[in-house]
Amino acid sequence: MSKIMKNLKATLSYDGTRYNGWQRQKNSKNTIQEVIEKVISEVLDENIEIIASGRTDAGVHANGQVINFKTENNLNIDELRDIINTNLPNDISFNKIEEVDNKFHSRYNVKSKVYVYKILNSKIHDPFLRKYIYQYTKELDINKMIEASKLFLGTHDFKGFSSGKKTKKSTIRTIYDIDIKIEGNEISIFYHGDGFLYNMVRIMTGTLLEIANGNLDKNCITEIFDNQIRSEAGFTVPPHGLFLLKVIY
Amino acid sequence: MSKIMKNLKATLSYDGTRYNGWQRQKNSKNTIQEVIEKVISEVLDENIEIIASGRTDAGVHANGQVINFKTENNLNIDELRDIINTNLPNDISFNKIEEVDNKFHSRYNVKSKVYVYKILNSKIHDPFLRKYIYQYTKELDINKMIEASKLFLGTHDFKGFSSGKKTKKSTIRTIYDIDIKIEGNEISIFYHGDGFLYNMVRIMTGTLLEIANGNLDKNCITEIFDNQIRSEAGFTVPPHGLFLLKVIY
Repeated sequence: MSKIMKNLKATLSYDGTRYNGWQRQKNSKNTIQEVIEKVISEVLDENIEIIASGRTDAGVHANGQVINFKTENNLNIDELRDIINTNLPNDISFNKIEEVDNKFHSRYNVKSKVYVYKILNSKIHDPFLRKYIYQYTKELDINKMIEASKLFLGTHDFKGFSSGKKTKKSTIRTIYDIDIKIEGNEISIFYHGDGFLYNMVRIMTGTLLEIANGNLDKNCITEIFDNQIRSEAGFTVPPHGLFLLKVIY
Repeated sequence: MSKIMKNLKATLSYDGTRYNGWQRQKNSKNTIQEVIEKVISEVLDENIEIIASGRTDAGVHANGQVINFKTENNLNIDELRDIINTNLPNDISFNKIEEVDNKFHSRYNVKSKVYVYKILNSKIHDPFLRKYIYQYTKELDINKMIEASKLFLGTHDFKGFSSGKKTKKSTIRTIYDIDIKIEGNEISIFYHGDGFLYNMVRIMTGTLLEIANGNLDKNCITEIFDNQIRSEAGFTVPPHGLFLLKVIY
């Protein structure tokens, strides 16, 4: 009798601080993928390979990363989640495991993603958020930031807002929504789009910050869509303010 | 002309994770007091001694610790705060500095203090809160916890709820209020009292947890007020869920 192969989808959170990003690498230890694959393989006593919705860079966090993996194991999925959590380091957590159709693929089936970038606009740092928010001390005109953010909406060539190597792959992406929330000194910029190029959220955020502090004019955004010159955009904000919040299928 | 001595009161936050508690010690390095005194002394080029509202133990956090210190320096207090913050490690932060009456003493003048102890009642840990909340996986009857918390209110001998060494000092304290807030799986227990003995908040919290999970009966609280037997109370919860929230003068 052949065993039945189940396809499991899991939603997870991680603090990216001490990892070399998501993606397993030949010469770099301590990636999130590697740590999780090792734990699941040991727990299930199978050689498990996991597929994620996409990689996150070194230092970037996630509240809603989605993976899938196939297993012959028949354990109850909530029990499996608890056993995996017990064995994971406590900066990685499985929130939910669901059994899904065998065809579900956590990368190919992505419809869109939501990222949030968090900024603390204050001279006073917050000891409890220091690894989860980017402290930016310069004065900001939030209205300028909101106005400029609208120019990113829609379908554009974001090549100038990425730090990718030369590639033949398309650099055209669609941004559905950018929502800027203010709570006291904290600014959270939510980006919802069909996909994001390498460093794209961090460069868009750096550009919005430089527009809001008067260093750049908002019209640079449409110009960079045309000329694709990375150096005309804002700086790349650091990874520790960035969270992969949600993957939509 | 003699210089004018100013008395400065400061409110500060710190992540206690990597420190050996507040109090400067002869044989133990890396206390919060030591780090702060070193920075202020360097910034002001004076030998500064700071007085805190009280010590916090190793691993305990603060959002509202209050200190005072005297200086001949005439720098603007907001500028002084910013310079101190720039020089402090980023797990300690000065929120505010005020000039106060020369007689103000941050320990002697304390009227009351508010601590909060945070519990995550879930099998799923939270990677972002792991150093700031105590994960407790057993099932809890919150109504039992709330009922029991009322027995702590008022003036009692809390000796059985402390792990202090034998002392002739009074172990009588008054608890004005205990407020239990629930947000999803997070339980925050706010303790407002005129003072707290060594480990008192952590043992009261452990006792409430054991009452809420059925391991202890709430009447043990009044019995321990009488018999002062530490071992009849609940366990000492770990320090990382505890925050000194406010000092009232």
